[in-house]
Amino acid sequence: MSRIQLTLVQIDNYGPWTVTPAPRRETDLQTLQSRLYADLSQFVGHYDCYIFFTRFDNMLAVTNGMDRAAHRRLQETVRNRYPVTVSLSTAAAESPVDALETASIQLQRAGSAQDRDRREILRIEETADTDDRLHIAHFDVNDVTEDYTDEINAFDTFIEIEQAYASLMRYFRHEYDGLSFFVGGDNIIAACPELTENAYRDAIAHVRGSVDVELKVGVGRAPRAQPAGMAAKHALETCRSDGSIVEFARPTA
Amino acid sequence: MSRIQLTLVQIDNYGPWTVTPAPRRETDLQTLQSRLYADLSQFVGHYDCYIFFTRFDNMLAVTNGMDRAAHRRLQETVRNRYPVTVSLSTAAAESPVDALETASIQLQRAGSAQDRDRREILRIEETADTDDRLHIAHFDVNDVTEDYTDEINAFDTFIEIEQAYASLMRYFRHEYDGLSFFVGGDNIIAACPELTENAYRDAIAHVRGSVDVELKVGVGRAPRAQPAGMAAKHALETCRSDGSIVEFARPTA
Amino acid sequence: MSRIQLTLVQIDNYGPWTVTPAPRRETDLQTLQSRLYADLSQFVGHYDCYIFFTRFDNMLAVTNGMDRAAHRRLQETVRNRYPVTVSLSTAAAESPVDALETASIQLQRAGSAQDRDRREILRIEETADTDDRLHIAHFDVNDVTEDYTDEINAFDTFIEIEQAYASLMRYFRHEYDGLSFFVGGDNIIAACPELTENAYRDAIAHVRGSVDVELKVGVGRAPRAQPAGMAAKHALETCRSDGSIVEFARPTA
Amino acid sequence: MSRIQLTLVQIDNYGPWTVTPAPRRETDLQTLQSRLYADLSQFVGHYDCYIFFTRFDNMLAVTNGMDRAAHRRLQETVRNRYPVTVSLSTAAAESPVDALETASIQLQRAGSAQDRDRREILRIEETADTDDRLHIAHFDVNDVTEDYTDEINAFDTFIEIEQAYASLMRYFRHEYDGLSFFVGGDNIIAACPELTENAYRDAIAHVRGSVDVELKVGVGRAPRAQPAGMAAKHALETCRSDGSIVEFARPTA
Repeated sequence: MSRIQLTLVQIDNYGPWTVTPAPRRETDLQTLQSRLYADLSQFVGHYDCYIFFTRFDNMLAVTNGMDRAAHRRLQETVRNRYPVTVSLSTAAAESPVDALETASIQLQRAGSAQDRDRREILRIEETADTDDRLHIAHFDVNDVTEDYTDEINAFDTFIEIEQAYASLMRYFRHEYDGLSFFVGGDNIIAACPELTENAYRDAIAHVRGSVDVELKVGVGRAPRAQPAGMAAKHALETCRSDGSIVEFARPTA
Repeated sequence: MSRIQLTLVQIDNYGPWTVTPAPRRETDLQTLQSRLYADLSQFVGHYDCYIFFTRFDNMLAVTNGMDRAAHRRLQETVRNRYPVTVSLSTAAAESPVDALETASIQLQRAGSAQDRDRREILRIEETADTDDRLHIAHFDVNDVTEDYTDEINAFDTFIEIEQAYASLMRYFRHEYDGLSFFVGGDNIIAACPELTENAYRDAIAHVRGSVDVELKVGVGRAPRAQPAGMAAKHALETCRSDGSIVEFARPTA
Repeated sequence: MSRIQLTLVQIDNYGPWTVTPAPRRETDLQTLQSRLYADLSQFVGHYDCYIFFTRFDNMLAVTNGMDRAAHRRLQETVRNRYPVTVSLSTAAAESPVDALETASIQLQRAGSAQDRDRREILRIEETADTDDRLHIAHFDVNDVTEDYTDEINAFDTFIEIEQAYASLMRYFRHEYDGLSFFVGGDNIIAACPELTENAYRDAIAHVRGSVDVELKVGVGRAPRAQPAGMAAKHALETCRSDGSIVEFARPTA
Repeated sequence: MSRIQLTLVQIDNYGPWTVTPAPRRETDLQTLQSRLYADLSQFVGHYDCYIFFTRFDNMLAVTNGMDRAAHRRLQETVRNRYPVTVSLSTAAAESPVDALETASIQLQRAGSAQDRDRREILRIEETADTDDRLHIAHFDVNDVTEDYTDEINAFDTFIEIEQAYASLMRYFRHEYDGLSFFVGGDNIIAACPELTENAYRDAIAHVRGSVDVELKVGVGRAPRAQPAGMAAKHALETCRSDGSIVEFARPTA
């Protein structure tokens, strides 16, 4: 069945830490955050999972295939190598929004994100099974290099991409229960429930209508995020070669 | 005088590289991008400069104080440690938008971002002087932990922050020639021209009106990004303690 | 049975690369090497394996539990994130020296380490089974902080440790077929065949006699390097508290 | 005049930390140590300085050109990004051994390396001037790939290099007051006082006589480590092309 497991990763008491005893140097904070994200990306990659940087102090991971021991090991390696610790909350559901809702509530019940005594919480409500399937959609912007990067200034290009992302992330979440994440360049990757081609066409039309940016999308389905995401990338290559705007990969498993 | 130097950092031919000979593993790309950004953050930090990840394949840095030799050294260290190379284009102007416009055009004239033969371009039109001053504004969201993180699910909190950022980045660029960047958590840092308190109040009101998120801001001014940004952080702490929404730091130099 | 799997990791054509087209900046090379090692350490850690930096351009890993797919994935992640590639050669035997001998020959037969066309070789002769056991010994220097670090200058302390290591590594390899590696501080970790307590006592006596440094050692045994090494660390803590010089951990599995 | 500035970098209370509350996972410790070293290498590289990993918990840097503010900034960035802190002690002298002796004593007087309350010590006795010159020697092993790497097993090659290093480091320190460091591959870099060609020939002959390994060396001289070291590398290339065993670079400044 279609079922996705999400893990909310939250740096413990991070906001207060960044300004205690005085505001810390921004370039150090940026380095800390992006390296922590990079390490977690390699970590979950070992389980064929994905993690998105989101707000950096709160990250979201698609963790079908990661069990409790793997989550504990993740907390251990952060504790051993960083000046901060992380709390984790995991849940699984047919829809990404439902899974995240449960994961968020579990963590909120354990205490505030800025509670000094709430450290290294681990809540795992329920996990996905090996015969569950999840869906990953990979969007990008049509002709971004030709129409934007090589034509207008770098910030104005970035404005277009951000408007598209802000539009898609909200619409897709409220209409289709999908969680979409900007991952650099002109790429947006979404954790999705099972959706029809029309749903994707509608979301793309919504972005076109609201901010006048043209997206296309490849969709993959697999027991874990990495093969689903890789199938989505290949489907997106098919969009590129065929000029289509929605492509579903053949099921890989 | 008020004058800012910006450097556009562009990974050469990155898009094609990510799918050649076949799409590369997403967790590796995420690790590569975020570590490259982290390294550049440490690098420019040595000159008391700032860099923003922006799209990761195109990054923007405030580089008052970095000369041509420093830019060359940055290209060298990337070439020595990464599978990709970077092109750099630098310009200075009273307004960040003008500086960026020049920097973007310089790089576009050297060839497309996806031209295989365009590698390690270095264009430096004009640089800021040691007696020039630049402005950094540090925005955050009021009560984000209490009102969002601890209350609603992690993605819905992120939606609010992204809508606020998408609204601010566009308005602030078009109305006030400022370039604003999401830097994690609920923080947005902007490279600004010299602006009045009313300009900041107006930008904050625009965001409140359009997406119903309350921002506050601290503003700093200095010869380089780091001291200006640190002054802005301290001014933001004053907002926090005094309940104000705009605070200017006393000039540090 | 007692059987260890070793992987020789060799950066392809590294020597020539470091001086082409001209000698590269030493601090960049040091960063590249130590980060590559750090990444590989995290990578093999996922399989509860160990890797030693050795010469950095040639590293040795104890890889019981890593199959061909894991080795391929290691090559892929290096290729995706570094300017260099690695070749791997793996073999298993009762004695570490025999395993390494086979692994070395396999790689030498594939071409010279400085052959430009020999890239990303993968040779896996034979692997260990899940019911095989390996032995890890963890040595350190008695009272290194009290007798050396806090008493004589930092380089003279380092000379003592290096002499001890140079003495142990040679003797232990030739007399007992064990491969020992300096891992920082005053610590030496060895991949060993099954050895008696007297063998360890003899090796320690040899070091005492030749360079007048006092070692002690904890020994662990398990199906993989990490639990064996962790058991060895705990055994070494027993040496510390009991004043003994050789301790065997109870078998963990 | 010939005068070298050395900084001893010591991780505070590191030994106890690695086993508190229980021994930490070795692969995490290896990652922590080697990444910290990599970061410090990039850091000091900005000042054209060198750092050597030595024991990892105690590192040595050649810091001509780094002032007190730079040392403070180094401590700050470690504190902001790692779970450990570092103490620094700096001194300058005509001979590297004298400088290190002073630096070591300064730090020892501040308390034990395993004192829990001794954190982030900064002792700077005296620094080098911009008109001082230092000497860097870069040694390597003749024909290491042809005679060793491609011929005997990887550990036996490593034994040869380690014996050569252990022999050189001790002899060179006691006879010529030079501090030599293994830096990977078959490379040894030494911080030296001003020495004659005969001194280098004698050291090489000592290594040949004691462990039967043939070294050659290039020597550079400059106000800072990086240009001196780069000159030494070029001189070593001259050895390679001319078949000589000692080459002095022409003074670069």
